Amino acid sequence: MSLLEDKTPKRTPISELGEFGLIEHLTKNISIQNASTIKGVGDDCAVIDSGDSFSLVTTDMLVEGVHFDLTYTPLKHLGYKSVVVNLSDIYAMNGVAKQITVSIALSNRFPLEAVEELYEGIHLACKNYNVDLIGGDTTSSTSGLCISITAIGEASKEDVAYRSGAKEHDLIVVSGDLGSAYLGLQILNREKQVFEANPSMQPELGNKDYILQRQLKPEARKDVVELLKSKTIVPSSMIDVSDGLSSEILHLCKNSNVGCAIYEDKLPIDFSAISTAEELNLNAATCALNGGEDYELLFTISQEHYENIKNDPNLTVIGHITDQSSGTVFVTKDDNHQPLTAQGWNSIS
Amino acid sequence: MSLLEDKTPKRTPISELGEFGLIEHLTKNISIQNASTIKGVGDDCAVIDSGDSFSLVTTDMLVEGVHFDLTYTPLKHLGYKSVVVNLSDIYAMNGVAKQITVSIALSNRFPLEAVEELYEGIHLACKNYNVDLIGGDTTSSTSGLCISITAIGEASKEDVAYRSGAKEHDLIVVSGDLGSAYLGLQILNREKQVFEANPSMQPELGNKDYILQRQLKPEARKDVVELLKSKTIVPSSMIDVSDGLSSEILHLCKNSNVGCAIYEDKLPIDFSAISTAEELNLNAATCALNGGEDYELLFTISQEHYENIKNDPNLTVIGHITDQSSGTVFVTKDDNHQPLTAQGWNSIS
Repeated sequence: MSLLEDKTPKRTPISELGEFGLIEHLTKNISIQNASTIKGVGDDCAVIDSGDSFSLVTTDMLVEGVHFDLTYTPLKHLGYKSVVVNLSDIYAMNGVAKQITVSIALSNRFPLEAVEELYEGIHLACKNYNVDLIGGDTTSSTSGLCISITAIGEASKEDVAYRSGAKEHDLIVVSGDLGSAYLGLQILNREKQVFEANPSMQPELGNKDYILQRQLKPEARKDVVELLKSKTIVPSSMIDVSDGLSSEILHLCKNSNVGCAIYEDKLPIDFSAISTAEELNLNAATCALNGGEDYELLFTISQEHYENIKNDPNLTVIGHITDQSSGTVFVTKDDNHQPLTAQGWNSIS
Repeated sequence: MSLLEDKTPKRTPISELGEFGLIEHLTKNISIQNASTIKGVGDDCAVIDSGDSFSLVTTDMLVEGVHFDLTYTPLKHLGYKSVVVNLSDIYAMNGVAKQITVSIALSNRFPLEAVEELYEGIHLACKNYNVDLIGGDTTSSTSGLCISITAIGEASKEDVAYRSGAKEHDLIVVSGDLGSAYLGLQILNREKQVFEANPSMQPELGNKDYILQRQLKPEARKDVVELLKSKTIVPSSMIDVSDGLSSEILHLCKNSNVGCAIYEDKLPIDFSAISTAEELNLNAATCALNGGEDYELLFTISQEHYENIKNDPNLTVIGHITDQSSGTVFVTKDDNHQPLTAQGWNSIS
């Protein structure tokens, strides 16, 4: 009677591999058996051939104490965000999100009213993104809250964007701005520590509305997919920025067998993020590169589309694709060329 | 800083509603926004129109200490079973399972080798049922193991079987046999108690192979869907037996607005289940009615198909559908007519 059948097992801590390493290890020998499975593990969504179009499937699991802290996360926001992070993966394939399933496990410390609040946020996200809640599972847990959501979407076979299509000379574009969600989290953690040390202290959250909203109630960029469609631009590759810009760019480059040059002075960073970074003695560019949870779209487009997007306030060209041998390069403001490294947020290690 | 935005919240324990009550409460106001959503919450699967055929989607979450006990569940079996319980829901719509996603949250007490063993079982189930593992999520948890699987399948628009199509005079049919998985669980729990009282005792599991296998490594009835297809029978309604026969029959009757008569002497119960029930001073018919986790298919067919199935060793006619006003009736061996009640296994209450 043991966790393992082998009575003298080797015990390798999972932290040795990290999240990406573990997934790669567990899925490397998968062989696809169904002709309808177009793309399995390894992109923002799996892709299934459903006849006239592609179905997109993505899933995320959020665990209390790992992905969220209920001392400062309102349950309604948590429900909203849990849906949004999944929809973001559908948009990252240049698709339209259509349905979600929601499963939750929760301990008996949660009364019905707490679950209702969580679902209020879930229903609101469904309404805002025109998505149907079509199923799920609800069960008890021995401790804490665990939320698992699967999102299903649709993309035309011509429009679907993988991580793998970036070509040399393509422009690298990101929507919105970067680093704010991470800085919002730093502020929340700071105020939590203040509160724990002295519960009568009022939190200092003035002028932090934007970065707090980016952390607590992010939005997915459905509008950017629609914008690209209206401009008849199909990105050559796309990914959403969940683990941090660096990590995502490295995914695009690895999957596309290309290199890149990213320019520090091009990174879109909101003014309130810059001032908060200064206040916390952090480098704003580092927050933008490695912060994570921005849920913006990062994509590559052919240079011919430049005129069509250059004045769009939602989009910023931050660099270009190079050949693989040039490596993945970050060009600082003083023209220092550094290798891009992924220090993205990693929920395993 | 509180779990709830309202500072003087009402706290209703979720156990007041139970699992089905909670799901109904949380989903009663859902409005469907997408034309492709054919069926949302309320059947074994959600149904999505994907053009030429229907896509089927189902999801289940399994939590350590609630759904499984690792003191007697080998991780490979757990992985296998986690997949099977989801595929069973696809077959219960008369569909073919095609893809799954697997998300796991696990604490650092699990080494890589434990996760590998879990995935061995997952991969084996995929191979046996011709299903592709196309995605998922892997994360840490603060305690225990949580597995969330979503299965995706396909059904032709003519063949899909809902819970709602049963008609008066239809025959009620169940595949395989009932109650064994529940009795297997009772034996495992008994041996666990013996082991905890005296770790040097060897477990007494002789002649229990079948019922233990039914509990630890159940199979989903893909073969029954294929059998019905080969006989060109489309069930008028169908559901899988996960919570116990009584509970499932009541679902069919409620969704179809009909009544039923089920006959005790028709219930298919394996000999080893009968002898184990005797040994444990349990009523075998009660185990068959309320035990749960059989993962057999329960369905209704028009009487015209009787000749075509009556000699099939996989199928047993256990009763027939009546009009709604006749109620849901269980006819005992001594011709006593009792109302059927659901005492199925309920993971919330």
